Amino acid sequence: MDKVRVGILGFGTVGEGAYRMLMDNQAAIESKSGIGLEVVRIGVRDMDRERGAPRELFTRDLESIVRDPDIDIILELIGGLDPAESLIEAALSHGKHVVTANKELIAKQGHALMRRAASQGLDLHFEAAVGGGIPLIQPLKHQLAGNDVLKLMGIVNGTTNYILSKMTQEGRAFDEVLQEAQAAGYAEAEPSSDVDGFDAQYKLSILSSIAFGGEVRPEKIPTEGIRRIGARDIDFAKMLGYRIKLLAIAELLPEGILARVHPTMLPRQHPLANVHGVYNAVWVKGDFVGDVMLSGRGAGAFPTGSAVVGDIIDICRNIRIGGSASVQPPQEGLYVLSIDQLRTRYYMRLTVQDRPKVLGIIAGIFGEEEIGLRAMEMRELNDGLGEIVFLTHLCQEQNLQRAMARLAATEVVACVENWVRVEEESE
Amino acid sequence: MDKVRVGILGFGTVGEGAYRMLMDNQAAIESKSGIGLEVVRIGVRDMDRERGAPRELFTRDLESIVRDPDIDIILELIGGLDPAESLIEAALSHGKHVVTANKELIAKQGHALMRRAASQGLDLHFEAAVGGGIPLIQPLKHQLAGNDVLKLMGIVNGTTNYILSKMTQEGRAFDEVLQEAQAAGYAEAEPSSDVDGFDAQYKLSILSSIAFGGEVRPEKIPTEGIRRIGARDIDFAKMLGYRIKLLAIAELLPEGILARVHPTMLPRQHPLANVHGVYNAVWVKGDFVGDVMLSGRGAGAFPTGSAVVGDIIDICRNIRIGGSASVQPPQEGLYVLSIDQLRTRYYMRLTVQDRPKVLGIIAGIFGEEEIGLRAMEMRELNDGLGEIVFLTHLCQEQNLQRAMARLAATEVVACVENWVRVEEESE
Repeated sequence: MDKVRVGILGFGTVGEGAYRMLMDNQAAIESKSGIGLEVVRIGVRDMDRERGAPRELFTRDLESIVRDPDIDIILELIGGLDPAESLIEAALSHGKHVVTANKELIAKQGHALMRRAASQGLDLHFEAAVGGGIPLIQPLKHQLAGNDVLKLMGIVNGTTNYILSKMTQEGRAFDEVLQEAQAAGYAEAEPSSDVDGFDAQYKLSILSSIAFGGEVRPEKIPTEGIRRIGARDIDFAKMLGYRIKLLAIAELLPEGILARVHPTMLPRQHPLANVHGVYNAVWVKGDFVGDVMLSGRGAGAFPTGSAVVGDIIDICRNIRIGGSASVQPPQEGLYVLSIDQLRTRYYMRLTVQDRPKVLGIIAGIFGEEEIGLRAMEMRELNDGLGEIVFLTHLCQEQNLQRAMARLAATEVVACVENWVRVEEESE
Repeated sequence: MDKVRVGILGFGTVGEGAYRMLMDNQAAIESKSGIGLEVVRIGVRDMDRERGAPRELFTRDLESIVRDPDIDIILELIGGLDPAESLIEAALSHGKHVVTANKELIAKQGHALMRRAASQGLDLHFEAAVGGGIPLIQPLKHQLAGNDVLKLMGIVNGTTNYILSKMTQEGRAFDEVLQEAQAAGYAEAEPSSDVDGFDAQYKLSILSSIAFGGEVRPEKIPTEGIRRIGARDIDFAKMLGYRIKLLAIAELLPEGILARVHPTMLPRQHPLANVHGVYNAVWVKGDFVGDVMLSGRGAGAFPTGSAVVGDIIDICRNIRIGGSASVQPPQEGLYVLSIDQLRTRYYMRLTVQDRPKVLGIIAGIFGEEEIGLRAMEMRELNDGLGEIVFLTHLCQEQNLQRAMARLAATEVVACVENWVRVEEESE
């Protein structure tokens, strides 16, 4: 073969970014691939838009691209399940290698697709699905492969990290910063996928499936977004030496894998606490390597295009030497634990009646639920109310939830205003 | 083939770390490799030492290992040039894949060895040569391969980072902290390779050769260590909002590659400024990916063992599918610039005579050398002397050097106490 031929499905910002990179850096990319490379077809829904590629490459007939016998690699950049899934299946069944940036599809159907690709000796790469241009998936598959991963924690959604960073730096409220982020193009008009944590959930599903070598389905990952984080909680976090981040966390416990996405208080000196704005980062702890952190721009046409092109180069090399599909798909069934089994630390903020017995009643409930306290702060509010903030020692999630329900039900507690899980050490 | 057989040359801490990892995580490693894996021979100089592997594996006859027709992969962990180089050459000529952690050998002879391995369809991997267990070499070869790398900066020597971190945190002198580091095992009894920058020079030679796709020979990298950094400079750096780090820097300029190793003042908020103690990190800026940072433990038996085992797993996969040597060795000849062509910013500290004309004379020299100043601080010392600290704007290295020589020669300057290059932005 003299040349590898690529067909692209979908030509939004990432498609244009990847295409531009393939053109701008063509000589270097071909030299590194060891073989020529040509984009021969681009499938889009709307033929009338002005686009950054020659008009004659475009077609509305996406099916024809995945069937085209001259095409070796399909680059899927449509996103979502339908029609991306059936197009990738068709591409594999026609013997084509696949590169995709589709986090929802890989999170939900990645295992079936990986097995199918492997059984046909085809590469299915998806580095761009998590963390934009940051090398993450492949380092977990390759350089870190000798490790049992013990824990991974990531800031994998740039929109929420931007919002939380702004709230922290400027002391402003969630709604206000969200609107500003929407106006600036950092958040979608329909922001739920980002701010409610689903984007991070898909990405954690993908990362933890690779890291732990088995399927961690997205619907098994308890997920909370950042809507309930207020300026007041961010202030308290600061005062106590923490920063609040939306973290995707997965860890290997004796009983199974515990994975979760939620706002988290991190000590200010933790490396993830210093990842600001639209940057993403994933921190991994392996049994031999210790802790490693990989960070960079988690989104955008060019960073994501960079990951896509890296995948294409690898597939070209493999085609050249006849060495595709070297990595086995994850096999093991993993037992995914309920969040009730989590043991961690908590921050909690209560509004209470300013009465003599308050502390005794609250302390009694914590004591009965076996929740130790390591810090407390109390102040008077107006109208006979007071505010109490607690940091707990390690305790069981279900005890904490039970304690909160009991606190909310007592007369002396006007309101459990908020609570946030706390990650203490870098271990 | 049912099984891949590994022969190890040298069994120091990294060898023991890698062997322990292969044993402890054997099932997972074989599942990821898709093939069985066995260490069949270990070559050492001293047979009498107690070691963490079965006695019958050991031999003093290293030559017999690289010739053994039953062995598929040679893991070279002797270090240095002799006999490592001739053993690796012999291994390649006997058709064996090679994994090495030998930074000196790869820096000095890596290109010849890579070409030789590629021409025989063999893998030569050396992830462990830089940054211990941090994925660095392979991400540059693979996930970032589509980028023209514009600049890379790394903290690649843990000993000097430990010493500078201690000096910064505790306000102590270099000699004192070095002695303590030696006692604690963080620095060698003969510390020159670390504190004079040669270890970092080898590593930068390797990283920049891969990043820029051509040979950057170590002897072409101007290298300065940290011996001349005093507690007083660290204090001034802190006061001005900087931290001093030993950085390995390489950048792509219109005229060629400029690579250098020296103590550098970095703004406190730069991600590399927050890499402390024995941690290493490499920050890479690519034309499409933007900036990416990879960090972790840069040394130690287990982290380095982790990188070695990752390389072995990859080679096993390639052997299984018959797809070795997919990555072409770097080809291009690179033009490596002299440090005279550097344009950067500088910190400078002078002891001067406390006389009225001092500032005018100094300002005159800076003006004639086209060096603009953006900050200055002056204070009285005893005995009719004063101290002046400058931060310059961007200027040419050769002008700065000339200005320093001229300053040292004037009567009003008692001494050019110190100077440090400053990296200003993260771009």
